[in-house]
Amino acid sequence: MALLRSYVSGSWHTAADEGVPLHDAATGEEVARISSKGVDFAGALAYGRRVGGPALRELTFHQRAALLKALASHLREHREELYALSAKTGATLGDSKFDIDGGIGVLFSYASKGKRELPNDTVYVEGNVEPLSRGGTFVAQHIATPLRGVAVQINAFNFPVWGPLEKFAPAFLAGVPSLVKPASQTAYLTARVVELIIESGILPEGALQFVAGSAGDLLDHVTAQDVVSFTGSASTAQKLRAHPAIIRNAVRFNAEADSLNCSILGPDAVRGTTEFDLFVKQLVTEMTVKAGQKCTAIRRAFVPAELLDDVAAAASERLAKVTVGHPAAEGVRMGALASLEQREEVRRSLKALLDAGSVVFGDPEHVEVVDADAERGAFISPVLLKADPERSEPHEVEAFGPVSTLMPYTSTEQVVDFAARGGGSLAGSVVSADKEFVREVVLGAAPFHGRLLVLDAEDAKESTGHGSPMPQLVHGGPGRAGGGEEMGGVRGVLHHMQRTAVQGSPAVLSAVTGRWVAGAPRTEGVHPFRKSLAELRIGDSVVAGPRVVSQDDVDHFAEFTGDTFYAHTDPEAAAANPLFGGIVAHGYLVVSFAAGLFVSPEPGPVLANYGLENLRFLTPVKVGDSLTVTLTAKQITPRIDQDYGEVRWDADVTNADGESVAKYDVLTLVSKEQP
Amino acid sequence: MALLRSYVSGSWHTAADEGVPLHDAATGEEVARISSKGVDFAGALAYGRRVGGPALRELTFHQRAALLKALASHLREHREELYALSAKTGATLGDSKFDIDGGIGVLFSYASKGKRELPNDTVYVEGNVEPLSRGGTFVAQHIATPLRGVAVQINAFNFPVWGPLEKFAPAFLAGVPSLVKPASQTAYLTARVVELIIESGILPEGALQFVAGSAGDLLDHVTAQDVVSFTGSASTAQKLRAHPAIIRNAVRFNAEADSLNCSILGPDAVRGTTEFDLFVKQLVTEMTVKAGQKCTAIRRAFVPAELLDDVAAAASERLAKVTVGHPAAEGVRMGALASLEQREEVRRSLKALLDAGSVVFGDPEHVEVVDADAERGAFISPVLLKADPERSEPHEVEAFGPVSTLMPYTSTEQVVDFAARGGGSLAGSVVSADKEFVREVVLGAAPFHGRLLVLDAEDAKESTGHGSPMPQLVHGGPGRAGGGEEMGGVRGVLHHMQRTAVQGSPAVLSAVTGRWVAGAPRTEGVHPFRKSLAELRIGDSVVAGPRVVSQDDVDHFAEFTGDTFYAHTDPEAAAANPLFGGIVAHGYLVVSFAAGLFVSPEPGPVLANYGLENLRFLTPVKVGDSLTVTLTAKQITPRIDQDYGEVRWDADVTNADGESVAKYDVLTLVSKEQP
Repeated sequence: MALLRSYVSGSWHTAADEGVPLHDAATGEEVARISSKGVDFAGALAYGRRVGGPALRELTFHQRAALLKALASHLREHREELYALSAKTGATLGDSKFDIDGGIGVLFSYASKGKRELPNDTVYVEGNVEPLSRGGTFVAQHIATPLRGVAVQINAFNFPVWGPLEKFAPAFLAGVPSLVKPASQTAYLTARVVELIIESGILPEGALQFVAGSAGDLLDHVTAQDVVSFTGSASTAQKLRAHPAIIRNAVRFNAEADSLNCSILGPDAVRGTTEFDLFVKQLVTEMTVKAGQKCTAIRRAFVPAELLDDVAAAASERLAKVTVGHPAAEGVRMGALASLEQREEVRRSLKALLDAGSVVFGDPEHVEVVDADAERGAFISPVLLKADPERSEPHEVEAFGPVSTLMPYTSTEQVVDFAARGGGSLAGSVVSADKEFVREVVLGAAPFHGRLLVLDAEDAKESTGHGSPMPQLVHGGPGRAGGGEEMGGVRGVLHHMQRTAVQGSPAVLSAVTGRWVAGAPRTEGVHPFRKSLAELRIGDSVVAGPRVVSQDDVDHFAEFTGDTFYAHTDPEAAAANPLFGGIVAHGYLVVSFAAGLFVSPEPGPVLANYGLENLRFLTPVKVGDSLTVTLTAKQITPRIDQDYGEVRWDADVTNADGESVAKYDVLTLVSKEQP
Repeated sequence: MALLRSYVSGSWHTAADEGVPLHDAATGEEVARISSKGVDFAGALAYGRRVGGPALRELTFHQRAALLKALASHLREHREELYALSAKTGATLGDSKFDIDGGIGVLFSYASKGKRELPNDTVYVEGNVEPLSRGGTFVAQHIATPLRGVAVQINAFNFPVWGPLEKFAPAFLAGVPSLVKPASQTAYLTARVVELIIESGILPEGALQFVAGSAGDLLDHVTAQDVVSFTGSASTAQKLRAHPAIIRNAVRFNAEADSLNCSILGPDAVRGTTEFDLFVKQLVTEMTVKAGQKCTAIRRAFVPAELLDDVAAAASERLAKVTVGHPAAEGVRMGALASLEQREEVRRSLKALLDAGSVVFGDPEHVEVVDADAERGAFISPVLLKADPERSEPHEVEAFGPVSTLMPYTSTEQVVDFAARGGGSLAGSVVSADKEFVREVVLGAAPFHGRLLVLDAEDAKESTGHGSPMPQLVHGGPGRAGGGEEMGGVRGVLHHMQRTAVQGSPAVLSAVTGRWVAGAPRTEGVHPFRKSLAELRIGDSVVAGPRVVSQDDVDHFAEFTGDTFYAHTDPEAAAANPLFGGIVAHGYLVVSFAAGLFVSPEPGPVLANYGLENLRFLTPVKVGDSLTVTLTAKQITPRIDQDYGEVRWDADVTNADGESVAKYDVLTLVSKEQP
């Protein structure tokens, strides 16, 4: 059988020994062998830092995003091959899509987030400029820069594609190379994905390394510039967190551990309601997708005490229809666990749970299977239990398979308390149409959860379900769930970067960030609207005006637009206004006149004004005031896939006393070249 | 001598033994005794969770901010008393102000940030609504809610006031009670501050507890809902980070350890330049303030090789003028170290450093002192060394006193590499007027730093200096600096909260967050501008229009405002524009007409439109298009100290096809009651 290869330090490495066998979850046949013997882990980390990091840091966020998109498209073309391999892990086609399409979806999502929410630059500028002095010569700006190390990603066996890709995408977008080490059981699928990636040549060399087999002494060599991300059991998470090199170097360590996630049925959702059916259906789905081997699966189902029997009956009825068997066989709804060892583990946990409860549906020791041998394959029946929620076992013992426990509650306060007894969860759900109940449960349970789904008739059709982490949303949870946080859009990118507060003069901050900061030098001359992106520089500006605002202007604007608000039209009422004390010009008049002042009307590189941000009216404009506007190029973002880009302008409208009456950002599209 | 008391579980606790003596740093006299014997640590944590947490969580962010402000004012009134006590720690009046006024300043700053940047609510809403479905019935929003535990704050001896207050302020603002445990040496000063706070009655009971003396078994009882923040030595940080309860429960652990901070002189800053003088002056200041006992002090000073002798001479000249002695004595510029033990520690570190270099100024064993006994008090001379930067000692050995090492460099790349050899620092500085050099050094050194100061002639007058952490900016650094992050404005608040992604229908998100979300139900009826804050509800809305935009309107607006941009005025040129393909109405015309449609002109609760945010023009408006605007109350923020508050409105301008042509938020001030 084939020995899986590692990809480290720029080449494929075949282990120095024969490796250990990996088995098809459904048939027990050997699929591949695995070993990392001979891999130079310290060398691989050094290679990532020396080769991968610099290559990635040369690219802008937008360029990295474009590579992620290309990679996603490439993998999508090879889906069928990956589905076939995935079946050997015990996964049905639906399970495989969840893993493989889900992973590709994360790449697409990060490609899109990178393009829309990150600059076409190598420095990330976070938050506003912080004023630190009265005179304005000393200010600060937080920036984020990529860590100079390697993102070490240790993944679990249950999602051999999604797991590595959801960790890789934000690291790559941040500009940090990855070293991927999947769990052995299903590593042949990850290995194939990595082969496809490396063969494609899409990524810069060093951006992705891969270890098949044990992590050896890998963690002994991590430094403060590396990031270690782990998905797996709570006990392994603890071991890694306490690793001497991680402790000694204060290495960023992010753990995502399976947790005792709960789903809560609202008291309004009695039998016959849409929400009752949604709850039961979701419970059965979460129990059986991936044979319940999901960190986010529902382990604890809390239902109003008076609805317990109804839920038990309805869930049992549905579970009875779940066909178990070879994942590739016709009609099979649930495949096998990942290995016989996993089944033993699930049975052990079930024993502990049965100390505190009883079986509602299923038999831990027997299951009818289609097209397979129930003993040679790692098959198990879905098992629904019921238990006393005052016992500790249902809140602490996790059977990592198609197993959930039903428990009754009698008040909102009580079920919030029960939810918290899981000690921290990745995901929870509330199924109810009662918004007041939902609000109380969500706000009460939030400190114990990374994600909470509210399911009801309104969102059911489009909901992605309790068990699906989304790349836009944080994935992780406190305590038992590992205390970490992955994805969450740009948040996941920033986990791989160092945040630094830079203090200096406005001119220095402009030089460092590439964005013009108020107070930095401005350059007047050719009207900046006459400059293409190639010619325009931050700080290029135009000062236009003055224009006096007359009583006629205000009257006319009121009449023309219909905005006859009393502060613009009724001298007596305006005088009584505590903020104005008299007639004021419309804010919209001020910005319209400002545009009339700063515009350069002839056709040229400026294509459109597509928006405006952070507008504040700072000083009332009275009749007779004269307005001057200063427009300054603040940020220039060429698009990598268009012949134009965005320019953000700082607009400052002042009166004759030099006071700012309005400040805002004008957003325009500007051509890269002169038309 | 007085035995310092702890304040735990709602009362003052006097230790069951005699305690150990604490000595005046300058005279050696006993100041107080300290012991925590008999403190029930598990009980104190439970009390904080049971009493302090719920009391704080009942308050809104604005209410907590107001209490912080009151507390700051109260402490400010007692400054003189605190300065006197502070002198016993070896601090000069300047040092004391740095500590005490600095700490009070953090309270004021957080009070202000809380009011301006956080909602007058108990839930923090982070980022935008994330669309998760095409139909818009399934969306998500990240929220942050206070952790349900206690913020355990273990502080260092060098800042007995600032240290505890800078940790307390963000925790309090987040709604999390604090348990403060200062280092023993200077705990009498912290104890007095805590007494002042408790006696003032300003804080809700349980919001602040205090332990004088050892932490006993405190950490054995922390859970995933607690936060542990530590400031002190790197070695203690490692010990705490690996504490079994912290590892087991994935407790949030934030460490801030003293680091080998560097200051870099630019090659442009030769003798005679402003920057040369600034560098030397700052170096001497950082060496001598608090007798160099600052986590952020400059330990490594990198200068161009050809300037080393000049810098050494100039710094020596300045250091020679630093009078050492009793901190309260006339003319004394530098007081004592915190204790004789500290002096021994500094001398030991100096020995190690001298293996790699030599003394430029000072004698580690002798110092002239004013008004004190140089041996009974913990006095030491400032010591400036020079060393070979290729040796490891200067980058690794920290003498936590008035000690710095000068080192030469020969290229920008090299000095960036030297800076990184500190293994992670809290703060660094670059002193140069060469923006290109500054940019390269800042971006190169950023991944290794929490804060970087650029000092030059432009900002020198207002700069707060290399060694001053600012409440608005993150304080912390990777690796050797502890890997943590404190303060940073709202970031520090969020460190005490759990981030949760909430998924559901727009109506559910609105119910949970208290903010109207697009797609949630709207209520029409009485025009919402006629409602006071007391009457207005999120979702209250008005639909106004249609109004047809005519060619005359566009022509007239161009002429009236002067905005004659070709896309509004020249049919031929407009037709050639790739985005419009013909004449379009001005964006400012669209929003002005929209205001004319939605306004309710008569005097009423709406006082003013003070701004506008996130305006995007989504579809070009052509002549003949008819506009309708829907305005919906999105967020209502009553001010706690005014008879009005802010209302944010969602504005959606649509054309006859129902397409949005512009979307934005309108910001208004509205009275709490009908006028």
